[in-house]
Amino acid sequence: MEQRIHHAGLGAKVMSAEQAAELIDPGMTIGMSGFTGAGYPKAVPQALAARMTASHQHGEAFRVRVLTGASTAPELDGALARADGIDLRLPYQSDPELRGRINRGEMDYIDIHLSHVAQYAWFGLFGKLDLAIIEATAILPDGRLVPSSSVGNNKTWLDLADKVIIEVNHWQPSELDGMHDIYYGTALPPHRKPIPLVNPDDRIGEPYLRCDPEKVIAVVETHAPDRNSAFAPVDETSRQIAGHLIEFFRHEIARGRIPPELLPLQSGVGNIANAVLAGLREAGFRGLTAFTEVIQDGMLDLLAQGVLKVASATSFSLSPKGIDQFLADLEFFRSRIILRTQEISNHPELVRRLGCIAMNGMVEADIYGNVNSTHVAGTSIINGIGGSGDFARNGFMSCFLTPSTAKHGAVSCIVPMVSHVDHTEHDVSILVTEQGLADLRGLSPRQRAHAIIRHCAHPDYRPLLQDYFDRAFRDSKGKHTPHLLAEALSWHERFVEKGDMRP
Amino acid sequence: MEQRIHHAGLGAKVMSAEQAAELIDPGMTIGMSGFTGAGYPKAVPQALAARMTASHQHGEAFRVRVLTGASTAPELDGALARADGIDLRLPYQSDPELRGRINRGEMDYIDIHLSHVAQYAWFGLFGKLDLAIIEATAILPDGRLVPSSSVGNNKTWLDLADKVIIEVNHWQPSELDGMHDIYYGTALPPHRKPIPLVNPDDRIGEPYLRCDPEKVIAVVETHAPDRNSAFAPVDETSRQIAGHLIEFFRHEIARGRIPPELLPLQSGVGNIANAVLAGLREAGFRGLTAFTEVIQDGMLDLLAQGVLKVASATSFSLSPKGIDQFLADLEFFRSRIILRTQEISNHPELVRRLGCIAMNGMVEADIYGNVNSTHVAGTSIINGIGGSGDFARNGFMSCFLTPSTAKHGAVSCIVPMVSHVDHTEHDVSILVTEQGLADLRGLSPRQRAHAIIRHCAHPDYRPLLQDYFDRAFRDSKGKHTPHLLAEALSWHERFVEKGDMRP
Repeated sequence: MEQRIHHAGLGAKVMSAEQAAELIDPGMTIGMSGFTGAGYPKAVPQALAARMTASHQHGEAFRVRVLTGASTAPELDGALARADGIDLRLPYQSDPELRGRINRGEMDYIDIHLSHVAQYAWFGLFGKLDLAIIEATAILPDGRLVPSSSVGNNKTWLDLADKVIIEVNHWQPSELDGMHDIYYGTALPPHRKPIPLVNPDDRIGEPYLRCDPEKVIAVVETHAPDRNSAFAPVDETSRQIAGHLIEFFRHEIARGRIPPELLPLQSGVGNIANAVLAGLREAGFRGLTAFTEVIQDGMLDLLAQGVLKVASATSFSLSPKGIDQFLADLEFFRSRIILRTQEISNHPELVRRLGCIAMNGMVEADIYGNVNSTHVAGTSIINGIGGSGDFARNGFMSCFLTPSTAKHGAVSCIVPMVSHVDHTEHDVSILVTEQGLADLRGLSPRQRAHAIIRHCAHPDYRPLLQDYFDRAFRDSKGKHTPHLLAEALSWHERFVEKGDMRP
Repeated sequence: MEQRIHHAGLGAKVMSAEQAAELIDPGMTIGMSGFTGAGYPKAVPQALAARMTASHQHGEAFRVRVLTGASTAPELDGALARADGIDLRLPYQSDPELRGRINRGEMDYIDIHLSHVAQYAWFGLFGKLDLAIIEATAILPDGRLVPSSSVGNNKTWLDLADKVIIEVNHWQPSELDGMHDIYYGTALPPHRKPIPLVNPDDRIGEPYLRCDPEKVIAVVETHAPDRNSAFAPVDETSRQIAGHLIEFFRHEIARGRIPPELLPLQSGVGNIANAVLAGLREAGFRGLTAFTEVIQDGMLDLLAQGVLKVASATSFSLSPKGIDQFLADLEFFRSRIILRTQEISNHPELVRRLGCIAMNGMVEADIYGNVNSTHVAGTSIINGIGGSGDFARNGFMSCFLTPSTAKHGAVSCIVPMVSHVDHTEHDVSILVTEQGLADLRGLSPRQRAHAIIRHCAHPDYRPLLQDYFDRAFRDSKGKHTPHLLAEALSWHERFVEKGDMRP
């Protein structure tokens, strides 16, 4: 194996994942690397889970509190959840096993704006950070770390934790060296200064993570891939959603509201986001920029073709094919991709300054433009709000995208009243389904209802929504935001009872 | 009357309010000055309302679209609403006549974060701005305006409007000259730069509003007071709320989370806010700062006593007694008060950088920490979200304050599910009622419910809320955020039907 640990003292701390896991105590608060299935520790959490299972078999409690960047993978969230080893988890997760435990009420989960996590940790709101477990690509002679495929909150965990365990992952390309930009200029109020970033590709920090070698209690070498599953091909519904959005962008350019190269794009992960990116290419856009959270396969294509000039993010989320593409043209991509800490990639100051165009998926929207990004029927969490709120609130415009129905038509994604609010009527600009696009900017609640029912609702649900609105306008005590309180959540009730929102 | 119009060309445009109102056409979009009952035009809107009434009597439609800074007064919102002269109003209002029309569905109202208004106008989202009607204290020889008792969106209206009507109000103290700081460094993306403000008292602009004399179609001289009603004395409930919050601040200082001089305070308007300010003085705090929207009477006292070092805002909201106090010690206050545009006073970049402590009232909160700031029973708007969202989302912590009950106990301000969400579970740190304080930071939804029911709910409602939570936890499909959908809004239904939330 190629030598990647260039610090002698840390080289002496190399041990197995099982040995490292022995150094972890029940009740610890642990900050782990990892963001959208990239750059998470792959060995120590599994060894820790094995220890927990053994403890539980002996009737001894062994749970920890787990803080990450965002979602990780089966080797981390899955393994620890299966071992019933997590007391508290934040800020975003997507693991089925973990989600099941949260929704059965067996553990606590806090859903936080991704831009808030690092500062809340610094404020002391999660208690003392006992340990950081951080994946790195390599360790430099002076002990600094070459980050791996995500940055997330690693800077904060390394700075705050009492002890550090480093996983050096030989699977991560050593060519990642130099692609990161770690900003060490943040501070706690009243000592904050302007963040000197004015373009998505500005470098304002340094390429490495500082790490006090004295705090490192173990180094574990791994050779394991990220959770980089291939994306499903773009489906017709996603293509239609993308089409409506891109038509809208052209319209806005024609009206002089946005420049021909748009404004820095923030794009969620998944099929619809990939369809939008592909659609931008097909529509002939060039010279775009991205200031976002995640670099997906679609963005590599756009960079390669000059559609995107530059992409700033905090994480890669590439398929195996995407990684091959990345490595095959490494120097090209190195000069066009920057990975930052998530407190910078999602920072309200920068999102507002750059005027990001936020594009995020959602679970449902109501007829007044409130958006639910996180809950099924108001009670079960799916993944979490992620960074959608950071960009929706502070960006130039906030677009929320979804098919108009789910569960083969049994669920309408446009409802009378959302069962949980993650983005309020004040923060939602544009709603898009395969049916069409509603531009909510400059509209009152009743005008919004008209636009959303007409342009976004599925034809099967449109008459039901219009009927609800008409009766609400007639019978509601207040007619600013007409509602029938006894009926507002009845669609969700029906869905919970019968698996179908339709009466 | 003292000469206040020092520009010859503009002096030639002096006319009566009635003559000026003749220059206004039906259908116009008009940006008016005014923020929390200060600095609004006092004569032209009333003359316009008279014209509208006359037109309506002849069967002719005459309505306009009215954009302001925030709430105004009977002479503006009241007069125009009574004349049925407003088609669309934004972004915040508090006039009973206007509110009645909105809630009867007779006109449109858009409730927007105050920090978003200026940029949305620049983005073109409210259409072309035909006219600005701006109150000023004086006109300088070069045509620039000495602002009056509020700044609000005046810079934006003056820059964007095709035509301008200026009201020079001789009632406004000429000594206001020099107290304002108008920042001309904002831009549209992609041309935005960091805003160079790092302390609440930094001056980053110029004291006057630029105004193209060519656009001015009328100058009207007035001598009329702002809507400066005296505040009610602080009541016992407000004192208790303030007491809990100040005890919490001391606790946070002791834990080293905030400095002894706190962080810049943002404080809503009203009795509770005044109680907090008075409480801070009595508790011995010194050297505090305010970065807020409104200077109330209470802040003058605090400045005079050295409790506050400096206060930055976008408006005065002083009682007649407060104005006397201000004028009696003018030089002292001039050096300690800065009035800015509301895009700066509420700017997310600055609120986050300074780490403001946001303190705002609310209508109701639910057991999971979602806050309703705007609606009665989900349908009738009260005033609007104002700047509470700007500070709650981006500040160091967001405190929401309310008595635990309203309507003599018939309404609980802690409910199972709020009937409208203005601040989501992700954005609410601290809830305070006269019963106590719940620190929601770092808590999961179920932990929040425990804290809110225990510390904030009124004893009459506490068992009802606990019972709801217990049954929801038992019966809810998802137990991350347990709810009984059929019952979640039943308290509001009962209130609408019977005027009482109690079963």
